[in-house]
Amino acid sequence: MGLLDFFRSSRPTKGTASVAKERLQILVAHDRAERHRPSYLPKLQREILEVIRKYVDVDMNAVSVNYEQDDHHEILELNIILPDGAQRA
Amino acid sequence: MGLLDFFRSSRPTKGTASVAKERLQILVAHDRAERHRPSYLPKLQREILEVIRKYVDVDMNAVSVNYEQDDHHEILELNIILPDGAQRA
Repeated sequence: MGLLDFFRSSRPTKGTASVAKERLQILVAHDRAERHRPSYLPKLQREILEVIRKYVDVDMNAVSVNYEQDDHHEILELNIILPDGAQRA
Repeated sequence: MGLLDFFRSSRPTKGTASVAKERLQILVAHDRAERHRPSYLPKLQREILEVIRKYVDVDMNAVSVNYEQDDHHEILELNIILPDGAQRA
């Protein structure tokens, strides 16, 4: 399964209120060879959000964060629902 | 299928040369309500790479970029193979 398929299948496209919403989803997956070092993903998350806010108006209450890890992987997921007309000129 | 499962299945974990490599994969998926506006993902890509380079030493030749879009989605994928000891102090 390709990525685009995965993304299409992982989100609701039809619903009772199927209003077209702008969404932005950011995933950062890190395969770690050394698992002892501290993760920089939480810091990276804040900085990536700062970058995104240059382009779109992000309400921090509309950001959901998910973080998963096991021995050799860590994945940071940011889901952002953008307000109408969020894109900056 | 959860995200962690997807990431585990989407990359080779066993190979002829199964050396543990540090990898970083970044995905930015944008569901667009309005498809007429220009995409800011290419610019975002450059800025996200700049942020990442604060934390790890990224060889720009080791970055592969994939971009897919259809009418309502666009997905930017960055795959970065990190050299040994890439993490900055």
